[in-house]
Amino acid sequence: MLTACQERNSRVVVGLDPRWDQLPPSLQREPAPQAFERFCWGIIEAVRKVAVAVKPQSAFFERYGSAGVAAFERVCRVAREAGLIVIGDVKRGDIGSTAEAYAEGLLGAESPVDAITVNPYLGFDAVEPFIEVAARNGKGVFVLVRTSNPSARDVQDLESGGEPLYLHVGRLVREWGREYVGDRGYSHVGAVVGATYPEEAGRLRAELPGVPFLVPGYGAQGAGAADVAPAFDAEGLGAVVNSSRGIIFAYQQERYAARPGPADLVGAARAAAEDMRREIQAVLGA
Amino acid sequence: MLTACQERNSRVVVGLDPRWDQLPPSLQREPAPQAFERFCWGIIEAVRKVAVAVKPQSAFFERYGSAGVAAFERVCRVAREAGLIVIGDVKRGDIGSTAEAYAEGLLGAESPVDAITVNPYLGFDAVEPFIEVAARNGKGVFVLVRTSNPSARDVQDLESGGEPLYLHVGRLVREWGREYVGDRGYSHVGAVVGATYPEEAGRLRAELPGVPFLVPGYGAQGAGAADVAPAFDAEGLGAVVNSSRGIIFAYQQERYAARPGPADLVGAARAAAEDMRREIQAVLGA
Repeated sequence: MLTACQERNSRVVVGLDPRWDQLPPSLQREPAPQAFERFCWGIIEAVRKVAVAVKPQSAFFERYGSAGVAAFERVCRVAREAGLIVIGDVKRGDIGSTAEAYAEGLLGAESPVDAITVNPYLGFDAVEPFIEVAARNGKGVFVLVRTSNPSARDVQDLESGGEPLYLHVGRLVREWGREYVGDRGYSHVGAVVGATYPEEAGRLRAELPGVPFLVPGYGAQGAGAADVAPAFDAEGLGAVVNSSRGIIFAYQQERYAARPGPADLVGAARAAAEDMRREIQAVLGA
Repeated sequence: MLTACQERNSRVVVGLDPRWDQLPPSLQREPAPQAFERFCWGIIEAVRKVAVAVKPQSAFFERYGSAGVAAFERVCRVAREAGLIVIGDVKRGDIGSTAEAYAEGLLGAESPVDAITVNPYLGFDAVEPFIEVAARNGKGVFVLVRTSNPSARDVQDLESGGEPLYLHVGRLVREWGREYVGDRGYSHVGAVVGATYPEEAGRLRAELPGVPFLVPGYGAQGAGAADVAPAFDAEGLGAVVNSSRGIIFAYQQERYAARPGPADLVGAARAAAEDMRREIQAVLGA
């Protein structure tokens, strides 16, 4: 991930969140799973040189049962063949042997997914199998620490020993990855840290050296480049930033539809991703 | 659920956790998804009159990608046709519109699943869509409160305001379900409360009237009938108890293989479920 960020001069992750009612009418002639596949192919083509990774959201595919899951698998393969890192946004978490089954399915050698998101509520034995299977296959894990939604505070901000819960969880994540920290200072055990809480992100960055961050919430959820800056280390590394709707549905925004060139899905997504890449690189001075 | 518990004089939920290496060799001649389906049909047939519900564990099916998910869907349909309540153990949880997609897929009118397990780490806006979609379709939700695994304590026992986190989460769950409490005193918003922590279960039962409990950890995880008793209300209702390995792989236990009658998978599972039913009913004085 570090290498991809430097080579492409980009920290951009594009969230693949296909929603039926926001698809172009031309794609709505097919059943949802096939339409989602075509839609995602277009987005992948649009952003393959600008982004470092895509983050397909499993929920939107699972919505359509096993046919949706088959489409998810194919989208992941296509993204990987296009040279993108694939972060499966699945937010799984379960006890020991069950987590192992999830881990083998999602992060096994055969799986087209490079990293996934994981929920820490069940503690270490629910996360360890993901960490181990990922390590074995050169893949990664991002543990939810501070999510980007408004009611994240319901549980994550509960105070314990004078500090919010998410900070305790963040420190656990650091511990869980410590033995895997590589030459470049980071492990494959990352944290999800929402862009919508920049102060918390800065504190977490300071407290969790060695933990790569996946930062959702850019764009449609309200965060801009200045908000995500605190998530990066002094070299402008250690984090990647996700935008979903702001890029994949850019074709619906006047700003991108009105640009010179084809005001289509692919062109608009590419322009939006390019803008996001430039804005973040500028703030990082990179 | 209450009605089923009374009519069948049972509080038994059978966890459908098919594991390839524990299947009878006769089933291992087929690919895993098909073998799992056959295996689960046998278990469903065995326990349909003894249990109130089955709890298929999605991870073991997802392990095999979309083909596994298709098998999961068929197993749920078969269980439902056999008159069992189907609790999909999926432990999902994600922000607003994403949770909605999961909820529509799993708890929609077309889905063969009657209830699912949900993770509370992201707070109310990640649980609300499940509660609403379930309410609309006469289905249910069980929110993880105190899980049965050893490292549940990593996060769930962190102390906040002099009380463990899981108690705060339990109270949130009660709040979230309050407006849905029905004539019989319970809502469709339940809690997962591990049988392996009987003291905690008793405290939660006292603090959370109106919240139905799903109690995992019986049998192979070490809890017995006396351990689950505190999870029930004064009338011996308000909870159902899950056992997975202890029933579905009973055919590997000397105790059941040696019984008179066919020492096969179906017979052993039925005998084990019947024993569990009787042990719990005895402790409840029911």
